[in-house]
Amino acid sequence: MQRKNFLSQVKLFRHLSSLTTDDGPYVKPYVKTAVPGPLSIEKIAKLNEISHNSTAHFVADYANSHGNYLADVDGNVYLDVLLQISSIPLGYNHPALVEAMSSPLVTNMMINRPALGMLPAQETYDMLQESLMRVRPKGMDYLQTMMCGSCSVENALKAAMIKYRADQRGTPIPTDLELDSCMRQEAPGMPDLCFLTFTSAFHGRTLGALSLTRSKAIHKVDIPGFKWPCAKFPELKYPLTDHVTKNKEEEARCLEDVRQKIVESNEKGLYVAGAIIEPIQSEGGDNHASPEFFQGLQSILTEFNAAFVVDEVQTGGGATGKFWAHEHWDLPTPPDILTFSKKMLSGGYFCKKDFLPEQGYRIFNTWMGDPARLVLLKAVFDVMERDGLLERTRKSGDKLLEGLGGLEQKYPDIIQDVRGVGTFCSFSCPTAAMRDKLSSQARKHGLENGGNGNRSIRFRPALIFTESHAQIAVDILEKAVLDL
Amino acid sequence: MQRKNFLSQVKLFRHLSSLTTDDGPYVKPYVKTAVPGPLSIEKIAKLNEISHNSTAHFVADYANSHGNYLADVDGNVYLDVLLQISSIPLGYNHPALVEAMSSPLVTNMMINRPALGMLPAQETYDMLQESLMRVRPKGMDYLQTMMCGSCSVENALKAAMIKYRADQRGTPIPTDLELDSCMRQEAPGMPDLCFLTFTSAFHGRTLGALSLTRSKAIHKVDIPGFKWPCAKFPELKYPLTDHVTKNKEEEARCLEDVRQKIVESNEKGLYVAGAIIEPIQSEGGDNHASPEFFQGLQSILTEFNAAFVVDEVQTGGGATGKFWAHEHWDLPTPPDILTFSKKMLSGGYFCKKDFLPEQGYRIFNTWMGDPARLVLLKAVFDVMERDGLLERTRKSGDKLLEGLGGLEQKYPDIIQDVRGVGTFCSFSCPTAAMRDKLSSQARKHGLENGGNGNRSIRFRPALIFTESHAQIAVDILEKAVLDL
Repeated sequence: MQRKNFLSQVKLFRHLSSLTTDDGPYVKPYVKTAVPGPLSIEKIAKLNEISHNSTAHFVADYANSHGNYLADVDGNVYLDVLLQISSIPLGYNHPALVEAMSSPLVTNMMINRPALGMLPAQETYDMLQESLMRVRPKGMDYLQTMMCGSCSVENALKAAMIKYRADQRGTPIPTDLELDSCMRQEAPGMPDLCFLTFTSAFHGRTLGALSLTRSKAIHKVDIPGFKWPCAKFPELKYPLTDHVTKNKEEEARCLEDVRQKIVESNEKGLYVAGAIIEPIQSEGGDNHASPEFFQGLQSILTEFNAAFVVDEVQTGGGATGKFWAHEHWDLPTPPDILTFSKKMLSGGYFCKKDFLPEQGYRIFNTWMGDPARLVLLKAVFDVMERDGLLERTRKSGDKLLEGLGGLEQKYPDIIQDVRGVGTFCSFSCPTAAMRDKLSSQARKHGLENGGNGNRSIRFRPALIFTESHAQIAVDILEKAVLDL
Repeated sequence: MQRKNFLSQVKLFRHLSSLTTDDGPYVKPYVKTAVPGPLSIEKIAKLNEISHNSTAHFVADYANSHGNYLADVDGNVYLDVLLQISSIPLGYNHPALVEAMSSPLVTNMMINRPALGMLPAQETYDMLQESLMRVRPKGMDYLQTMMCGSCSVENALKAAMIKYRADQRGTPIPTDLELDSCMRQEAPGMPDLCFLTFTSAFHGRTLGALSLTRSKAIHKVDIPGFKWPCAKFPELKYPLTDHVTKNKEEEARCLEDVRQKIVESNEKGLYVAGAIIEPIQSEGGDNHASPEFFQGLQSILTEFNAAFVVDEVQTGGGATGKFWAHEHWDLPTPPDILTFSKKMLSGGYFCKKDFLPEQGYRIFNTWMGDPARLVLLKAVFDVMERDGLLERTRKSGDKLLEGLGGLEQKYPDIIQDVRGVGTFCSFSCPTAAMRDKLSSQARKHGLENGGNGNRSIRFRPALIFTESHAQIAVDILEKAVLDL
């Protein structure tokens, strides 16, 4: 009986704690100055004396930010649906992370940072098991840690290319001629291999990753790149449920384009070692495709022995209501490589065993990850499980979509193409100028947000975002719409 | 009088503290098992179940490592002259870093990690001034923070290319045609620009950086790269003082090669936007060149409006006895860009104002650095100043060179070409096989070390390395030589 009481109290506590939002003292946004405010402007001017800061929204006061609310130096408080470009899983100053920071292991790994490829720590295996390996995608049992999204993508490409060449030559061991010629940037050691990418894709900004990125010209112009093929990503009509037939036709055309691009490239001797794709194209404007499209893509890639690399740097970590967005696809067999970063606090990729190079020093660098962040990531996953944050994300995502849908009905000349999975939502405006205006007005009303694509606004709230936050966001957007 | 006593006590304390080595309980190495020991082997086998670990020396016990001494899980203790590939400036568990970790700012920046390009923190300016800006090279007043060496190099290339194109077109603003064509990986938006590199260079392993890396085939084979020009790095004879004339001739030939490579490349329309070079080629085998060589290089690059990028990822941070290795060159004007990482705890580059792009989002990514590490870096610089670690490094480097020189005289068939500046020292063996054997034997005697180039061993001790550590290292090497 006593135990039963205890359990029901635990249950009640869990229920209450799942309702709390960890927002500290904040219950709604509060903006009392222009945005950016005078102190932000002053501090940005100081920063401009030593670095480039034209892209700063304002200057943040992180110590006074809590949960879903971001404070700035002028005393303004914003409901944050951008969350440092989708990279703070539990919002600001989450108590579980404050506590995790007191672990001696954090200090140990920060001040004795290992070169993991040479000198792993005695704690490394357990740290990986308690953090990243808990969320390994089914069938992808191997892991390479890295530090950021771009280097995760760069190294995933390398792993796929090493595997492709091993298959081509029938052995993972390079020939002497290959070892010799690669030092002169010549074939066969430096092979004519490429990666297939998609229109509007974003995979990072280092020179390999940037060659795969096709979202915005200002990211690419004046920088050399690899002349690799690019297939058309589906341009679907929203809501998806109202345009099933048209969308299916568009996806079929795009899959045919994939096949054609691979055949053309292989025929001219520039072999396609793999394709990389985002489950929802994020920087490129929240472009969706159906599970059938991704299944079809996997099937074509398999046919050509090309690796299927899923870039979950932005979609991974729970925002779509499943931990990995590709879990929505019901694939017959797992992807070959999955890249991650952002909400995962550091970077890396999961892969099938075939994509682990047999020889050392092929995928290697000084740090090969950032172990201190694994201690925090363990705490993130503990909270996600304890508080049922995937379920919460599905619910608050539904609420957000419903609210945005309501705005689309009321203001169809301003809010269009509302779309999303979980809280990974967005909508478009008719023009870039209108989007920029709306985004800026919404910020003035206390919604820290960010655009993507040419004319969309994306929602990337924390996993602790609730239905009531969704309502506040929608209300602010409506105010901003009325300002236009 | 009282004040005088106090001051002399402070002086005495400072003197004593400059003699302490922060090595905790350790006074010498102690190896009681095979290397790797049984527990290391067991733990590496576990790690192999989820990742690739063929390059692990052994499994470290970082909590029990102190100062210059690295402990392993089998209870062995090594004098560490590799220090996580040259990346731990003050050795293991330095008390000043333990203390710095208790700063609320570390917790703040770890758990509320800013997307610095969009939302700098109110502390950002002061944090930069108290850490990186304290060591900015003369005449390089601007800073872009990054996270690792490879991404620092990749972004330095981009900054140099953006500047070169702005000069070519006479304005930093790209044309519509350029913006349009770059999205199809076509000229003029994706320009025919290249970077000049040098034989045996190492600049990282992402695809842009890897194109500049010419040190080892296993790093490059099977990976596509840019077909950029490569000039010959001087192959000098050591000791430098005994071969002045021959070495001058070699450097003159290499400078002529630089000029010829630039002319050839520019003539065929692949314009050389810059050259990147290490002050001492590190991964490539500790290859030195004279100040006059670098002065000559700068002069040629200036003539062709090509950026002079100095890669101090490994040489920077004090190991050569000056904070930056290029300070040894007495250049008439500063380099254009300087990349750093490793001992600087995170990454980035310093540059002249011309190399800061005028428009936003051109040099950009989610995190753009790792502010928590700046708090630790401030503590590193405080200790370096308090304890006079540059001076200590010069002294212990002299001692190390003298000891290695003695071994070269005694064992000229095994220890050759002893060379170095500060503690940034190395020597070569006649063959790779002998080097590998010697390195492994030295580790068994308690010297954690690493090879570089084809047949060299490099010293990359911490800045707290003293003359007595140098003596221990030399004594162990002699034991290892006698084992051969």
